[in-house]
Amino acid sequence: MTVHPFPALDAVRAALVGLPEPDRAGLDAARDRNAQLTKPPAALGRLEDLAIWYAGWRGTARPEVTNPQALVFAGNHGVAARGVSAFPAEVTAQMVANFQAGGAAINQLARTFDARLDVHALSLDRPTADFTEAPAMTEDELCAAIATGWQAVDRDADLLVVGEMGIGNTTAAAAIALALFGGEAADWTGRGTGLDDAALVAKTGIVAAGLARHPEAARDPFEALRRLGGREIAAMTGAILRARHLSIPVLLDGFICSSAAAVLHAARPGALDHAWAGHVSAEAGHGRLLAALGKTPLLALDMRLGEGSGGVLAIGVLKGAVACLSGMATFAEAGVSGA
Amino acid sequence: MTVHPFPALDAVRAALVGLPEPDRAGLDAARDRNAQLTKPPAALGRLEDLAIWYAGWRGTARPEVTNPQALVFAGNHGVAARGVSAFPAEVTAQMVANFQAGGAAINQLARTFDARLDVHALSLDRPTADFTEAPAMTEDELCAAIATGWQAVDRDADLLVVGEMGIGNTTAAAAIALALFGGEAADWTGRGTGLDDAALVAKTGIVAAGLARHPEAARDPFEALRRLGGREIAAMTGAILRARHLSIPVLLDGFICSSAAAVLHAARPGALDHAWAGHVSAEAGHGRLLAALGKTPLLALDMRLGEGSGGVLAIGVLKGAVACLSGMATFAEAGVSGA
Repeated sequence: MTVHPFPALDAVRAALVGLPEPDRAGLDAARDRNAQLTKPPAALGRLEDLAIWYAGWRGTARPEVTNPQALVFAGNHGVAARGVSAFPAEVTAQMVANFQAGGAAINQLARTFDARLDVHALSLDRPTADFTEAPAMTEDELCAAIATGWQAVDRDADLLVVGEMGIGNTTAAAAIALALFGGEAADWTGRGTGLDDAALVAKTGIVAAGLARHPEAARDPFEALRRLGGREIAAMTGAILRARHLSIPVLLDGFICSSAAAVLHAARPGALDHAWAGHVSAEAGHGRLLAALGKTPLLALDMRLGEGSGGVLAIGVLKGAVACLSGMATFAEAGVSGA
Repeated sequence: MTVHPFPALDAVRAALVGLPEPDRAGLDAARDRNAQLTKPPAALGRLEDLAIWYAGWRGTARPEVTNPQALVFAGNHGVAARGVSAFPAEVTAQMVANFQAGGAAINQLARTFDARLDVHALSLDRPTADFTEAPAMTEDELCAAIATGWQAVDRDADLLVVGEMGIGNTTAAAAIALALFGGEAADWTGRGTGLDDAALVAKTGIVAAGLARHPEAARDPFEALRRLGGREIAAMTGAILRARHLSIPVLLDGFICSSAAAVLHAARPGALDHAWAGHVSAEAGHGRLLAALGKTPLLALDMRLGEGSGGVLAIGVLKGAVACLSGMATFAEAGVSGA
């Protein structure tokens, strides 16, 4: 066994206690600076809130984004055997090879925004159990996957995006969201990589069956993750939690990433204060999931790829926002008359 | 007099005839390539349409964005004397100095997205006439301003963003939009840099008075631009038209930029096929104006600064989209199974 910080779920739960908060002095200094910059009040709109949030977590009124890290986790799902995806399960491993060769969308986006990209494939040859029949993971498997994410975060990163690859994982994410936030299976189940109407109905039934099989999932967010999730989803949960411990801001990607983040939110309100929603995807349940998390997305471009693609694309918006806060002249410096 | 290509408005009108269209072979090749890339069909959403559009204008299936140009034009408005802005008119010149010193938002954004920034101040010491009393510009003044924009475009640029600075220019833009698209003055009039309710009512009345004074503006888009516009708005019109002649794609900025573009659209449908809406601003009439132009914005971040800021921020999205189209592996290259 690899040594890791989570021998059991209790250790993960303990890591949710006493989370760091944003730096109050940095936050106040950033707000004060923003109010003096050469623009009408609030004229940069959400860029101002975004930059001030980032400044608070970085503890300075004039931050920079120079070392963003993108992490992509891959996992395979037993439920994929039930035909919930338009693609066969072997595509997970094929796409990992594509990430490693530099040929995927996330490679191009990470390069465009100067983000370091690290890919972690989690036991692809051992899919999780089909959640309609058994818990997807044992406690050991869950803890190991969370630890993989936890340990993958670069402590020198100044921004984190987490993404995933896993045929069948919108099914797992929908089941987690249903467990955490209730409603109907149809509220959270979407077409994933491109299901037709009949396949969507079948997928919705499988999500509902998962919840019926695992009533414990609705009572404990980590049981939802263990029973319905997957290794790559748990790894994202671990990475987002680790980023909070390191005060590294996070840009969330799409539906699956948000389901991983939602476990932390459900376990401890405020646990995602260090995260903004990078985008809202075209996957049916994502807008509802972000609303449940209290997050407003930066981008809405009908993307539904995963891989961290929407989160990394949003790095551009963050860089622009931070550049304005940190680089603009004040009214006094520029000799510009105020309103 | 400076020699320029537009001795009279007829020469501008003539420049709207026989406009270049996107390269059909490049467009087809980009569509074909996009369909083979290692992602589910349409999973990059609007990024795919954006990249294919860009590829068509650049005439290649694998374009790059390496030389974007941002142009900021500044002008002063006689109507500013009527108290239509929260800021005094001298701020136009002060902000031009701020642009030249590198202290404004647009400087930081242009640097973030590696865009060349050129600033042109147009006769700031000679404001246009107050349009409630007389046409804002003579035909000579209008043609000279259009020519300034036309001549400012770098023929080697592979992308253009145009922006503006001009105290009072949301009033001019609202009047132009009202002339071109009808409706009520209140449909197009917003708070600009931050008017209160009473000042907004007064501004709306001034926009309506402009139209009442210049009925010719509703019959001829260039008369709308001449009678109600301003030099920086006319320069943007000229630059956007020049970009079309050079097959340089354009990302539109906010309300004022869009009013400049709208003159071309109203004079010749299809004249803005080389332009995407970079963002929708918080200025009240901008969403309506983009709808009138048939454009869906890439970003919606409640910005309302002008300067080209929203257009330049959208360069990040375009760069990401183009990087995916040009850099991703195909299913065959990567050995990934299709759906």
